[in-house]
Amino acid sequence: MKARVTVMLKSGVLDPQGKAIGQALNRLGFHGVGDVRQGKVIEVELDETDTSRAHAKLSEMCEKLLANTVIENYAIEFK
Amino acid sequence: MKARVTVMLKSGVLDPQGKAIGQALNRLGFHGVGDVRQGKVIEVELDETDTSRAHAKLSEMCEKLLANTVIENYAIEFK
Repeated sequence: MKARVTVMLKSGVLDPQGKAIGQALNRLGFHGVGDVRQGKVIEVELDETDTSRAHAKLSEMCEKLLANTVIENYAIEFK
Repeated sequence: MKARVTVMLKSGVLDPQGKAIGQALNRLGFHGVGDVRQGKVIEVELDETDTSRAHAKLSEMCEKLLANTVIENYAIEFK
């Protein structure tokens, strides 16, 4: 089973990397670009067939390693 | 209109960051974890209402700035 974990900074948290991308896009001549935020995506291959068990395992992985839950949110999707 | 661009290394390209995450998960006691790949996700707020125009604009952004198309693939989704 393949899963995708998306980790984004929480909405109140300053995102300098996203801001830099937004400014770079403006300099390149892309106008009408508003807020830009950057996060990371982690694709994990699991040998688990049960979606709810896989979800529980991935949540634990996020809490322990993949995300810093003080400043980041995570979302888990299955493909 | 809010769009999400996902940039991942192409499948043939070595992903040391993903590999490091996989090894760390194993060390933390998560077993049954196969291939792990890490990419980035960029959320862009566009003042564009037409989806196909927004898609064209985002493709151009990816080609010029957001992705290195020699080694990376990108995908564009709208939310």
